[in-house]
Amino acid sequence: MRVYLAGPDVFLPAPHERGAALQRLCAAHGLEGVFPLDPLRGGDWPAWDGLPEAFRIARRNEAHITSCDALIANLTPFRGPSADVGTVFELGFMRALGRPVFGWSNNAIPFAERTRSFIGGTVDADGLAVEDFGLADNLMIEGGIHGSGGSFFAATVPADAVWRDLTAFERCLAAAARLMR
Amino acid sequence: MRVYLAGPDVFLPAPHERGAALQRLCAAHGLEGVFPLDPLRGGDWPAWDGLPEAFRIARRNEAHITSCDALIANLTPFRGPSADVGTVFELGFMRALGRPVFGWSNNAIPFAERTRSFIGGTVDADGLAVEDFGLADNLMIEGGIHGSGGSFFAATVPADAVWRDLTAFERCLAAAARLMR
Repeated sequence: MRVYLAGPDVFLPAPHERGAALQRLCAAHGLEGVFPLDPLRGGDWPAWDGLPEAFRIARRNEAHITSCDALIANLTPFRGPSADVGTVFELGFMRALGRPVFGWSNNAIPFAERTRSFIGGTVDADGLAVEDFGLADNLMIEGGIHGSGGSFFAATVPADAVWRDLTAFERCLAAAARLMR
Repeated sequence: MRVYLAGPDVFLPAPHERGAALQRLCAAHGLEGVFPLDPLRGGDWPAWDGLPEAFRIARRNEAHITSCDALIANLTPFRGPSADVGTVFELGFMRALGRPVFGWSNNAIPFAERTRSFIGGTVDADGLAVEDFGLADNLMIEGGIHGSGGSFFAATVPADAVWRDLTAFERCLAAAARLMR
């Protein structure tokens, strides 16, 4: 079973080592982890020749996702109250394919509370309301995970372990392995 | 042609009026705009009975998107350097359905520049790199729009018009009407 590993982990200082670490944990759960930086099976499509590098990467990630049976997303808040938007695009993409999506976060503070801290109040300067359903992030995220049959796990970790701790990730792997057995 | 109107517009102080304004502009371009707060054609699915309200909204939005021929996303930066994650989930969802997706933003500053301003440097405190391809946001967003045959438009507007100005939205409508004619 192939599992796409979505997340801002590609922006870490040693992204290939991070990918390898995630993939070792996948293998320990009987899953094949596909990291965004992996080459595409069969190589890039000839139709992408001439595309700017950024668009080739986007096409490759979409093809990786399409080739997988499930997706696990690192939804740890990234530069603001919400998850990385590239990761969330990929989560929505896989959700539309009808396959199971899982999410994990190393921040267990509810979304509404994180957002109010960020904007310094209950409504922001432009009058936009704060979504408050007691969820971990925007409702499309946990709603999509729930609808797909997947699960979401949050952990509370020390500040210096936010981009290292893999406890919540491993809970996703265990849930994915159970669901896809 | 039905077009789903994704965006954080639902968080504005008068969201129904905002939806009606966007839908009038759609009609002027020969398109039927579907706003997230619209009731679902045929009503909610009985299978959703008993779901928490947040998950019912997520299911309804997914069903709205699936019922549409294209999607136009308000990608104006929202509480951080990137677009609203709920909007981006929906963009990825429609992209996976293989239908055209369009995006607009009332901020024309490149993503990398916005991100560096936000984190106050070129790499953030945890060592995570800043994606810099000269795009408007994370590469999955413009990559997905480009791959779908859609277009992205950014406008520079006064600070107090960021959630009012619809010039870039209307450029999306014109492009969508052309593509789907």
